[in-house]
Amino acid sequence: MKYIITVFISLSFFFNTSSQTPEEVVKSIFDNALTDNTAEEHLLYLCKNTKGRIPGSGQALHAVRYTMQALIDAGADTVWLQEVPVPHWERGEESAILRSELGTLELTISALGLSVATSTGGVNARLVEVHNFDELREIGRKGIEGKIVFFNRPVDNTLINTFAGYGGAVNQRVSGASEAAKYGALAVIVRSPTQAMHDFSHTGVVRYQENIPEIPAVSVSPHDAEILSRWIMKDPDSMLQLVSECRNYPDTISYNVIGEIRGSKNPGEYITVGGHLDAWDISEGAHDDGGGCVQAIETIRMFQELGIKPKRNIRAVMFMNEEMTSTGGQVYASEAEKNGEKHYAALESDRGVMSPLGFGFGNAGDNRLDKLFELEKYFRPYGIRYFARGGGGSDISPLIRFNTLQIGYIPDTQRYFWFHHSANDTFEQVNIREMQLGSAAIASLIYLIDLYDL
Amino acid sequence: MKYIITVFISLSFFFNTSSQTPEEVVKSIFDNALTDNTAEEHLLYLCKNTKGRIPGSGQALHAVRYTMQALIDAGADTVWLQEVPVPHWERGEESAILRSELGTLELTISALGLSVATSTGGVNARLVEVHNFDELREIGRKGIEGKIVFFNRPVDNTLINTFAGYGGAVNQRVSGASEAAKYGALAVIVRSPTQAMHDFSHTGVVRYQENIPEIPAVSVSPHDAEILSRWIMKDPDSMLQLVSECRNYPDTISYNVIGEIRGSKNPGEYITVGGHLDAWDISEGAHDDGGGCVQAIETIRMFQELGIKPKRNIRAVMFMNEEMTSTGGQVYASEAEKNGEKHYAALESDRGVMSPLGFGFGNAGDNRLDKLFELEKYFRPYGIRYFARGGGGSDISPLIRFNTLQIGYIPDTQRYFWFHHSANDTFEQVNIREMQLGSAAIASLIYLIDLYDL
Repeated sequence: MKYIITVFISLSFFFNTSSQTPEEVVKSIFDNALTDNTAEEHLLYLCKNTKGRIPGSGQALHAVRYTMQALIDAGADTVWLQEVPVPHWERGEESAILRSELGTLELTISALGLSVATSTGGVNARLVEVHNFDELREIGRKGIEGKIVFFNRPVDNTLINTFAGYGGAVNQRVSGASEAAKYGALAVIVRSPTQAMHDFSHTGVVRYQENIPEIPAVSVSPHDAEILSRWIMKDPDSMLQLVSECRNYPDTISYNVIGEIRGSKNPGEYITVGGHLDAWDISEGAHDDGGGCVQAIETIRMFQELGIKPKRNIRAVMFMNEEMTSTGGQVYASEAEKNGEKHYAALESDRGVMSPLGFGFGNAGDNRLDKLFELEKYFRPYGIRYFARGGGGSDISPLIRFNTLQIGYIPDTQRYFWFHHSANDTFEQVNIREMQLGSAAIASLIYLIDLYDL
Repeated sequence: MKYIITVFISLSFFFNTSSQTPEEVVKSIFDNALTDNTAEEHLLYLCKNTKGRIPGSGQALHAVRYTMQALIDAGADTVWLQEVPVPHWERGEESAILRSELGTLELTISALGLSVATSTGGVNARLVEVHNFDELREIGRKGIEGKIVFFNRPVDNTLINTFAGYGGAVNQRVSGASEAAKYGALAVIVRSPTQAMHDFSHTGVVRYQENIPEIPAVSVSPHDAEILSRWIMKDPDSMLQLVSECRNYPDTISYNVIGEIRGSKNPGEYITVGGHLDAWDISEGAHDDGGGCVQAIETIRMFQELGIKPKRNIRAVMFMNEEMTSTGGQVYASEAEKNGEKHYAALESDRGVMSPLGFGFGNAGDNRLDKLFELEKYFRPYGIRYFARGGGGSDISPLIRFNTLQIGYIPDTQRYFWFHHSANDTFEQVNIREMQLGSAAIASLIYLIDLYDL
């Protein structure tokens, strides 16, 4: 099933950029991004009216309909949907109550995405705290069987690269359940992987290994992880009653949303700009990744409004199901292959929408990289100076098979993990000016890459 | 009157940095800043317990006492207060009600600091909207006399430098009242100078010219400025009832708070790191400038905790009364002159505590600048790369008479004016990691300048 809507654009007949220098075009993009309200309206709508839009949810379909219309309004020549198979998982009632000599404490938790539920009445068991999988092995089945494993390795806050910090802790969330189940654990409770010390729990996907019992997995807020650790130390017989009534349903169908501007000279070639439309059910998905979607829509809007006529087809893509099983990106690449499309470059914005630092470039040879790095001069007036080797994103990575240039949008991520995958990722946490500096940077880069055939 | 408290430090006898490379010392500073909780506690206290600490207020004295103790706890060798004469102005009941054919609307306003009050019952008058002082002249006394002048020139959001944007609009707030009074205006209502479009009004100081009638001056939120403009256009007979019962009292006394580490080799020389302790009465003064004060305290704390032994005396200074009449900075320089102090360098953090970009250097020759710019290599691992000509701050500028190097701490200010001088400048708007990257950058720069005699 494929919906096609063709839109006739009149505005762009009246303006075009052919008489402007590239510097002037870039300036017009930044000026527009910093003074237009459309992006703020889109983000507000996605956050407040499609909150909790995990793959397979009605909210995700609502977001599909909304962004489809947004792309039409932005002036895309063609807007359509791409069917994407997605998991259907729903959070249920959940609670974690710690009982010990010290008293009773309710912890702030979130079931991990795709986790199995606890059985009726929940799990009620002692805890064993570990910091990595080696410790599991050292403790062994004797110390773990029949218990709840508490993974409590914090993010290393001294790492300046916050994604490196996150990456150093997140295996507890992704793989901890199966690792603990190998030793007979009943469930796992995982410290939220974040640099923040606060009361929000951060969810994310858990992946079960085959042929290992699937046990319930939840995350706990960093504050409560600290308390939990202290209480267990003082009273090793502390009992945790863990209830999580989440449920996995059969896979269902959702959609990638695509808006395209037809290229004027290289009609077989494509440049993709994308974010992912799905977001965690406990969040508004503002930074992750409503903002990235809005930036992609903005690229279309500004190209049309400013009369920028690209040589290649420019596509804004709202990928579905990045967070759970990344099928949106796979479908997009498969369809491209079927249609014999030549994918020249692809950019993903999925690191939050704080102030732009620059871009990372992957899947490019030294010669191409050198030319791309020269573009930095166009961005210097806007304080954007980070042009680095290596970059991309999970939704555009399946395009690597076409030798497509991979571009990752890189904002200042120092505060990103205060929001990521949590109820703290709200519209109010986005500064629209910062997001729009990013929209302008992205649209400008796409314009320049297309203009100079980089 | 001068309080002196001498503190004996034992900790620093046990550690010192002499065996470490400068790179290692800088790394230890960043590691400490990103993992220690002291700064967060200080900022939380200042925001929640000394909120509204304008010069001359009890809250400001509370902040003086608190930061004095914080500097002692940080390990300063000496902590003392410097008497500063300050204005004493208090906000009173205030309201602005617009009545027109379209209905009745209460606007969000804030009296400007040092403004006179409206007379009993308030001002009730028609409005005349202008965008600059030229328009006042063109309209003339006939169109202005007996009316309230509404200054509605917005900040130019296309300016990437947000301080330049602010600077392009703020003369309406600072000088608008006297300019309008020259033509017989009864009061002025000024659009808040901010890039934000929101419901907060942003206050700030108004300065009256001599021999011109002093008329009440208030700011209005940007949202309400937009509405006000539309309503006046539709119904030019709209009436604004403006009440502002603020009051100017006789000048009083407050204090600069100073904490000093004694230098080991150049005892007559001083390096100052400062922020201002006073903040607008409607705000918590988190970004402006509680955070800057905390960064100065952090410099002392980290030097002592990490055993960094500076050659010169290092002073953290919480300047009083930056916001109204800048007497704190003047007193500090006068005292320095009296005491024959040689002020080698001074750094001010008063642009918010978002992620650091770098530093601006003022009052230095090319030779000194070149050497300072070479320090950039120490900051590159932390993503801090902006080392620029020109910089300083209003509290350290009186030190220029000693030929003191002026250093301005430069964070990413794209979202700063969402907070500046408004009730939106709260603890919750500060990301502690971003602030602490700044604390580390500042302490590292001071360490390196002292180490290399730059």
